[in-house]
Amino acid sequence: MAFQPYQTSMLALGKAPSVIRETFEYGLARAKEIGKENVFDFSLGNPSVPAPESVHDTMRRLMDTTDSVQLHGYTSAIGAEPVRTTIAADINQRFNAGISAQDIYMTCGAAASLTVTLHAILCPGDTCMTFAPFFPEYRVFVEAAAAKLVAVPADLENFQMNLKAFAELVSPETKAVIINTPNNPTGVVYTEENLKAFCDLLRAKEKEYGHPIYLLADEPYRELVYDDTTVVPYLPNLYDNAFVCYSYSKSLSLPGERIGYIVVSPKMADNRNVYAAVCGSGRALGFVCAPSMAQRVVADNLGRTGDLSIYRKNRDLLYKSLTDYGYRCIYPDGAFYLWVQALEPDANAFCKKARDYELLLVPSDSFGCEGFVRIAYCVTTEMIERSLPAFKKLAESYGK
Amino acid sequence: MAFQPYQTSMLALGKAPSVIRETFEYGLARAKEIGKENVFDFSLGNPSVPAPESVHDTMRRLMDTTDSVQLHGYTSAIGAEPVRTTIAADINQRFNAGISAQDIYMTCGAAASLTVTLHAILCPGDTCMTFAPFFPEYRVFVEAAAAKLVAVPADLENFQMNLKAFAELVSPETKAVIINTPNNPTGVVYTEENLKAFCDLLRAKEKEYGHPIYLLADEPYRELVYDDTTVVPYLPNLYDNAFVCYSYSKSLSLPGERIGYIVVSPKMADNRNVYAAVCGSGRALGFVCAPSMAQRVVADNLGRTGDLSIYRKNRDLLYKSLTDYGYRCIYPDGAFYLWVQALEPDANAFCKKARDYELLLVPSDSFGCEGFVRIAYCVTTEMIERSLPAFKKLAESYGK
Repeated sequence: MAFQPYQTSMLALGKAPSVIRETFEYGLARAKEIGKENVFDFSLGNPSVPAPESVHDTMRRLMDTTDSVQLHGYTSAIGAEPVRTTIAADINQRFNAGISAQDIYMTCGAAASLTVTLHAILCPGDTCMTFAPFFPEYRVFVEAAAAKLVAVPADLENFQMNLKAFAELVSPETKAVIINTPNNPTGVVYTEENLKAFCDLLRAKEKEYGHPIYLLADEPYRELVYDDTTVVPYLPNLYDNAFVCYSYSKSLSLPGERIGYIVVSPKMADNRNVYAAVCGSGRALGFVCAPSMAQRVVADNLGRTGDLSIYRKNRDLLYKSLTDYGYRCIYPDGAFYLWVQALEPDANAFCKKARDYELLLVPSDSFGCEGFVRIAYCVTTEMIERSLPAFKKLAESYGK
Repeated sequence: MAFQPYQTSMLALGKAPSVIRETFEYGLARAKEIGKENVFDFSLGNPSVPAPESVHDTMRRLMDTTDSVQLHGYTSAIGAEPVRTTIAADINQRFNAGISAQDIYMTCGAAASLTVTLHAILCPGDTCMTFAPFFPEYRVFVEAAAAKLVAVPADLENFQMNLKAFAELVSPETKAVIINTPNNPTGVVYTEENLKAFCDLLRAKEKEYGHPIYLLADEPYRELVYDDTTVVPYLPNLYDNAFVCYSYSKSLSLPGERIGYIVVSPKMADNRNVYAAVCGSGRALGFVCAPSMAQRVVADNLGRTGDLSIYRKNRDLLYKSLTDYGYRCIYPDGAFYLWVQALEPDANAFCKKARDYELLLVPSDSFGCEGFVRIAYCVTTEMIERSLPAFKKLAESYGK
């Protein structure tokens, strides 16, 4: 075999054009031409509300009161024990889930939570399933673990999990399923009914195949729900072989600080060995420990969030306005995304046309679903207000 | 094939007893029995001097002056541009190495620098070499990248790189070599002569095999050298196909904050593609970006270190005393380790005996070399002073 100077799959990933990133870069260039205030960039899922002030209060207090060697030193690879104990108590108080400190593994954010878990459980030949539309990095993470991603086609009516399609695609090779609720890119929260039916189906398949099928709940948007009636069920309470992959990026507006955790459900079959495999995986991938000061900061700010009312206001304004203009919008219970049907079958063409009105939207194709766009409303309310005439004109150009 | 509920290799790693960790845990338990002041724990390579006060000054200033969304938001996956520009300028000022911001990829510390680089370049069937004694995680990282680690036997006289043994073991399958100077576990700094001869040999082998052999310089201890005459050559100035895997863990005493970088030498063959593969690898492993505030903190503290004079004082005291007691100590130019020949052939038996005197040392076997011990002197000088009678009695028990 010819010498390969590098992993061609890694080169491809490094060079792969991200449509989200490309849209964002276009926006920066366009802002230079016509002024920032005239470009309406809805491309990035980057929190737009500041971290709660208590986060900086905690940082200052830690610097004032904690020995530097202790504060900035290595923690245990699984995370500082007091941090894990505090987080477990908070989870139990909210969800009555029976989690202990020994079930928690602190990570460098949700992406690390996913890669560490997937490398722990997936073996070559395994498949991991997920529901379209889905965060495109799932494919990257699963394939990096030498397994295959199988995406279940979207439920184009409600964007709940399409269980009928799932039942047709699940197979004895299915080792794991990633679900994401509240969902990126749709903003939809899976209903308790949908989740319970899914867990029943998974348990039946576990029995049929004679082996566990792990459920990975990717939950960075758990706290971002806007209607008082919205329930985001805690997966380990519905299904035993569950992992929770959490991050504080969105709830505390700390995406750059890379801090989150994995819960390995105490009810999981062979829990202690799976947890040990998670530890081995984190070690093999080079994580060492989650950032030490950030571990203490999040433990000191459990139950707090940035000012989420801004996102709610943005959602209400955008959903109502766009619906009025004749767009079909999927009602978003959570996250900070609005999922809108493109006004022509080709979402890429639609997004290209939207640029004529300085509207920067992300076409749905990269999320594994055609004909929609994602509008990230983690922006200022004022920018949304200024953008509304452009959305109206865009609709009118399609005869709405 | 029978269903595997998890990766058995990851389970093994997660359960693998680390002799360093086991020694540390023994020390904690022993301290409870006989008092902390009576246990002399030299097991861990955890910086014992505080971060320079300027680190906290920078953190406070950033919190006071920078918008929270900006400060804690995602940076570019490769690191914030101003941070990379500042680091490149600092490298060039110190080493005249012609590095640009585009050659730097910010990471979550040295372990991440290594795993991201190794996953970018290593393909199944490749081998990666290193020189014994070596940091045991090298084997973990190389094997996680589906390649094979080949360790070159130690030069038991001077603990420089054993080039004769290397020449016998290098093969057409050799894709990369990891070197670590100042060295963990020996504290030795490879001489310029040794390094130049090694680079000449590598270049000859590149020519013979017709493909690049990458040199990974693992350099977390670069700033920890104690004699004014000690030179730690900058590898990209000696060899074109070089990576530098750096971390601020030791120089700024921030090991828990997980912040470092990779330099992909601009002189490397196919530099842009290799850099892109590094980006793809970081993405696939789930790193997203290096911690955002820590990126700005290190860029604001280039050229500063914790008070390294404490390590120098410890080194001088320990080296002189142990030599006086009859131990054979390898003179350490750098890092914070003293490498001492065990007083019996079996280093494990020797370490067990040392425990009778409450001395907790790490046997050399896990570093790929028999018959020595590592003494981590990143401890208080006062503890070293109190430990000296124990070292003396231990030597006397062997008839010294």
